[in-house]
Amino acid sequence: MQTDVDILAVKRTAALPPHAECGHEMHTLIARLFPICRSITGDGVRTTLRILQEYLPLEVREVPSGTRVFDWIVPDEWNIRDAYVIDPIGNKIIDFNKSNLHVLGYSEPFRGTVSREELDRHLYSLPDQPDLIPYVTSYYKRRWGFCLSHRQRSNLPDGDYEVCVDSTLQPGSLTYAELIIRGETDDEILISTYICHPSMANNELSGPAVATFLAQHLLTWPRRRFTYRFVFVPETIGSITYLSKHLDHLKSHVRAGYVITCAGDPGSFSYLNTRLENQEVDRVTKHVLRNTVGEFIEYDFLARGSDERQYCAPGVDLPVGSLMRSKYAAYPEYHTSADNLEFVSPRALSESFGMYVRCLEALEHNHTYRVTVQCEPQMGRRGLYPTVSTKKSHDEVRAMSDLIAYCDGSCDLVAISDKINVPCWTLAPIAEKLRSHGLLEVVG
Amino acid sequence: MQTDVDILAVKRTAALPPHAECGHEMHTLIARLFPICRSITGDGVRTTLRILQEYLPLEVREVPSGTRVFDWIVPDEWNIRDAYVIDPIGNKIIDFNKSNLHVLGYSEPFRGTVSREELDRHLYSLPDQPDLIPYVTSYYKRRWGFCLSHRQRSNLPDGDYEVCVDSTLQPGSLTYAELIIRGETDDEILISTYICHPSMANNELSGPAVATFLAQHLLTWPRRRFTYRFVFVPETIGSITYLSKHLDHLKSHVRAGYVITCAGDPGSFSYLNTRLENQEVDRVTKHVLRNTVGEFIEYDFLARGSDERQYCAPGVDLPVGSLMRSKYAAYPEYHTSADNLEFVSPRALSESFGMYVRCLEALEHNHTYRVTVQCEPQMGRRGLYPTVSTKKSHDEVRAMSDLIAYCDGSCDLVAISDKINVPCWTLAPIAEKLRSHGLLEVVG
Amino acid sequence: MQTDVDILAVKRTAALPPHAECGHEMHTLIARLFPICRSITGDGVRTTLRILQEYLPLEVREVPSGTRVFDWIVPDEWNIRDAYVIDPIGNKIIDFNKSNLHVLGYSEPFRGTVSREELDRHLYSLPDQPDLIPYVTSYYKRRWGFCLSHRQRSNLPDGDYEVCVDSTLQPGSLTYAELIIRGETDDEILISTYICHPSMANNELSGPAVATFLAQHLLTWPRRRFTYRFVFVPETIGSITYLSKHLDHLKSHVRAGYVITCAGDPGSFSYLNTRLENQEVDRVTKHVLRNTVGEFIEYDFLARGSDERQYCAPGVDLPVGSLMRSKYAAYPEYHTSADNLEFVSPRALSESFGMYVRCLEALEHNHTYRVTVQCEPQMGRRGLYPTVSTKKSHDEVRAMSDLIAYCDGSCDLVAISDKINVPCWTLAPIAEKLRSHGLLEVVG
Repeated sequence: MQTDVDILAVKRTAALPPHAECGHEMHTLIARLFPICRSITGDGVRTTLRILQEYLPLEVREVPSGTRVFDWIVPDEWNIRDAYVIDPIGNKIIDFNKSNLHVLGYSEPFRGTVSREELDRHLYSLPDQPDLIPYVTSYYKRRWGFCLSHRQRSNLPDGDYEVCVDSTLQPGSLTYAELIIRGETDDEILISTYICHPSMANNELSGPAVATFLAQHLLTWPRRRFTYRFVFVPETIGSITYLSKHLDHLKSHVRAGYVITCAGDPGSFSYLNTRLENQEVDRVTKHVLRNTVGEFIEYDFLARGSDERQYCAPGVDLPVGSLMRSKYAAYPEYHTSADNLEFVSPRALSESFGMYVRCLEALEHNHTYRVTVQCEPQMGRRGLYPTVSTKKSHDEVRAMSDLIAYCDGSCDLVAISDKINVPCWTLAPIAEKLRSHGLLEVVG
Repeated sequence: MQTDVDILAVKRTAALPPHAECGHEMHTLIARLFPICRSITGDGVRTTLRILQEYLPLEVREVPSGTRVFDWIVPDEWNIRDAYVIDPIGNKIIDFNKSNLHVLGYSEPFRGTVSREELDRHLYSLPDQPDLIPYVTSYYKRRWGFCLSHRQRSNLPDGDYEVCVDSTLQPGSLTYAELIIRGETDDEILISTYICHPSMANNELSGPAVATFLAQHLLTWPRRRFTYRFVFVPETIGSITYLSKHLDHLKSHVRAGYVITCAGDPGSFSYLNTRLENQEVDRVTKHVLRNTVGEFIEYDFLARGSDERQYCAPGVDLPVGSLMRSKYAAYPEYHTSADNLEFVSPRALSESFGMYVRCLEALEHNHTYRVTVQCEPQMGRRGLYPTVSTKKSHDEVRAMSDLIAYCDGSCDLVAISDKINVPCWTLAPIAEKLRSHGLLEVVG
Repeated sequence: MQTDVDILAVKRTAALPPHAECGHEMHTLIARLFPICRSITGDGVRTTLRILQEYLPLEVREVPSGTRVFDWIVPDEWNIRDAYVIDPIGNKIIDFNKSNLHVLGYSEPFRGTVSREELDRHLYSLPDQPDLIPYVTSYYKRRWGFCLSHRQRSNLPDGDYEVCVDSTLQPGSLTYAELIIRGETDDEILISTYICHPSMANNELSGPAVATFLAQHLLTWPRRRFTYRFVFVPETIGSITYLSKHLDHLKSHVRAGYVITCAGDPGSFSYLNTRLENQEVDRVTKHVLRNTVGEFIEYDFLARGSDERQYCAPGVDLPVGSLMRSKYAAYPEYHTSADNLEFVSPRALSESFGMYVRCLEALEHNHTYRVTVQCEPQMGRRGLYPTVSTKKSHDEVRAMSDLIAYCDGSCDLVAISDKINVPCWTLAPIAEKLRSHGLLEVVG
């Protein structure tokens, strides 16, 4: 065994980027958006996007009700001014103004007096979580309803109740927004988040907040290899609508993507793989998690639940995963009034932001390289290796040597990082240095 | 996360079909066939097939001795009227009429008086199982011999023994039978069993019995997707003969197949994989076993021992596995006089029958589907999903949703069943319902 | 189940070939070569190769300094007559004549008087192994230096030291040798070893010694399927030089190869896989190790360190592995004065020799066969199987039967050996017997 090398310290750990300050800004944004009553259509979405436009130059689009989008039809637009229930002795016991979760999403308008039994057929509650108001919707079948704590529901006295749902359900449009941040190539990274939930903080305002600050952050980068496409859509019908307008373009340009959601809770990180698994976005994200927090929960596509359902659908198959903290439906506060502003923290939001930054940086650097010379290059004469060989020197240039040994044009940088067990942020500058010496060329 | 769904109970267990009554009928058939002295040729085979013709419209074929079948030659036909040994004091101590296992299979005719030493060179016994008569044959080298318990053999006195083997070994033919049950397509399921063993119940009369009742059962189906080919052949030379006549047809038509044997003993189920492994028949059979009995023994092709040796031979490579209870040679009664009518039970036969029915049903339903729409279809407007979304509803339509998520035309129903952990008999009607709504199309 | 077989004893173990005597001869050769001061160029290499020419008809080649070899340039030739350090009181405390390890490899000439501080900048020692002289080189940057025990270095008094390095570093040539032993085909087995280290016995004289006796042994074989190419080169620059002259030929002819090194120490066997892994040489070598010593250490290419770095470099990718005892850098004596004549033993050398012989024999026999008949062949009429079938007979011809079952032309003999768990030296004669009966044909 023979090497010509001595000293090259290889850093094997990397702190997350120090963006803690933006955690507070994200939390402030969430708090500002929290009271708005959003749904898959309506003025709540528009108000939300108008506020986000203070942060980003978003383009807002309107798609008319009745528009065919693949197998779906954009529904009528829903807006609501007020809703309440007054009990037999005149108390307003359910009040939309106290929590917009009280109204079944997409409730049709109704005014009238009903018996307790009749009212109960329109009520939704959670026997297992008797103090929480659940979040329930009925987008595609017209009905009206109220959500309330199971404790309250159980104590409703007999008698006549005055019910008011002052809503409108009529032709209008579905609203979404997008932002394209151009890079050096037309290859795209898709970042999608949804803006259709009423007052819940983790699922979903954490998603739009992190997406917004990620976009701001990307705009500060001096160079971007990829073009970034940010999409703020109502879940399901919104992503389907977006795909129906852009499918061919996205299929030929999107190299990786994420649905950002559930990014502010105190849980540890989790990653939901794409349907086809083992795609670049899957490998890169798991590499980043393994080399930062180390431990994380990995879900396969069976555990899907958000817009990756559309992005990864058979025949669509965009490489879109989802990096979350606690996955939706995996924490008890999910889809209840307990998913509130206290449940999300600046620190958790900041960590999620930092992890996404790492993932995007890793994607940016994830070139496929090929060595340009036959046999090993002579590092010593280029000043790349120490010139005295000692027993100890073997470890020290190992990363550089291992990188060259696997740069055969068949695998990308993150695959080599995984193979040789060196984080990609340690390896990327080494690769670029070798490229600057003409020893590596980029083939992908 | 957002779903539009509520209630759809998914059954995850399925009782075996209630065919217990046919267990007794199969045992009765076995008892009737038991006394007949079968071999790879001769009247024993013909008598056996004539009895089976009372149950099924079998076509019986004769192939003359001397016919070249691939590397083999159909041997002379063997028939036997009587055989015995009389000891020095005149007792008939070995008597073909008491058990046809006493005669070495294919013994050439012999009459004469021999010493104990000379006789012993023609005797076969089992020192480890001293009370049992072994089953031994010498098809391709002419000799005569007797099989007896090791205890009896050890006590033979010196002296002269009178030996009679009243057999014939002369040009005749090899006999087999087949039955083609036409289905909607020309794709075939091959069911092969063997009819060449003398008085042993599990190996092999359980095989012909289960095959017979399976064929009867298939004739009652109102529709059959596949054509079923039942083959009753002497082992090895019979399946080689059959393949030599039908190889091209079988290679282009057989989609799956089984060698049925060892189906009546009290042991638990086992499955012997095809040589190429992981073929449809392998995946389907193991899926059925996992989702019914749960536990079973899995053998790879190294453990082969019956006609799958021919069906799966290199270059032949029909996808033929073998679903058994205890595998041949894996139970002590195998190939001895202890493999008798008490060793097989109506209940075990009935369970085996039911398991084969499940496998054939699974094969019938094992289409490859592809979703016809881009993105998820809208289930709600078709009445396929509940119209109220609650937290609890996610689980309930999971099977339907998961099915759609994996119907990309690349994998069959059983592969998706395994992936999403739902039995194919639960999933198949869901798939057909989706097909009836135009949401899935069959591509294989 | 039915077989026509009785007796065929399958040997499942094989002693190593009885070459113990050559262990002493190899040790004697090592002892003779040990005192010579070798480096990557110079008269030490020439003297070494001249001695090896007493054993083998080696062709010795010279490549002039300055020759471009891929990314490298053949360096000036280094020779040394004497080197020493005299301390302030006149004692010759470091003396090249006592150990050639004392001189930093490729030290430029120097004569002068230096202070202790100045001298210390030219010293190399091992604090963790304070009694040993390390082996250090500086091939590609001109400097001079001495290696000594850390204990001695720590006790050097202040004062002026007289230093002499009586070396030359000037245009000359790089020297290597090769030997081609022709076989029946042009497919080649490459055996490479290196001859550039001064007085160390395991790394590296064990390599040239085993290679020399392997070549002698191959010359005694009556038939060789493959052509054998033995290469004795200085490490790194030598293998690069050799590849630069022969790359196209080697890429189209080398079927397997080894770098032989570290073959004489008392450690257990280890195998370093090729970069692409799972190539024939990898499978064959591990098959041999598993079926002889059983336990061994397996390294993946990440642990590489010798000339496989060049042979397996991206784009070169010759299938060259390395079978060693203790891997270089994995034992404390490595690259120190403790790697001496006591550290290597005749027995260890002989075992390594025997293991390499087994590997080469296995490669020679590692044909890919295909069965020539449809279905199983009839073994009985060819006398290949016993003609009486009994229960016990199944095991006994299992190896033959299993071999036939997997000879479908898709996998080589060693792959089948691994699959059916029979050593290839048991299976190879069975395969050849079947070939002689026309039942198998060689397809690779």
